[in-house]
Amino acid sequence: MKINQDVFGKEVLNADGTVVGKAHDMEFDEETREIKSVIVKKGGISNTLNISKGEDIVPFDMIKAIGDKILLKDAFEDDFLV
Amino acid sequence: MKINQDVFGKEVLNADGTVVGKAHDMEFDEETREIKSVIVKKGGISNTLNISKGEDIVPFDMIKAIGDKILLKDAFEDDFLV
Repeated sequence: MKINQDVFGKEVLNADGTVVGKAHDMEFDEETREIKSVIVKKGGISNTLNISKGEDIVPFDMIKAIGDKILLKDAFEDDFLV
Repeated sequence: MKINQDVFGKEVLNADGTVVGKAHDMEFDEETREIKSVIVKKGGISNTLNISKGEDIVPFDMIKAIGDKILLKDAFEDDFLV
């Protein structure tokens, strides 16, 4: 799977089907080359209204599937956001 | 290290100091989460003159350092390009 082509820019949905934001970046460990997390840029209505802004760092563990959209696991709670 | 922020868009230099292109994408294994390769978009004078175009897939093993520029190892030869 390609990161820029297949991941970045896709909408990230939580288990409720709510759009959390869009995949914007990824963090990786240079030693192990392992991808650690996906950085999700918040957007949508809350951002437009200036209710919330910024980014969430979503651990790669929390990702259920990467298809047309990126789906997060059921257990996804705000606690997982850094 | 962040992929979009710290890797993409950077110039890739071979051991001769020649600019091979710019890091444009990365391939990773969804199972292991491991980054497999960097996709380098060719550019520069040869591209402008239409001598060469397209992308090179550089195995992550061939990367020596990611700093202001991305440096490839000495052993880098065209044979490594797919």
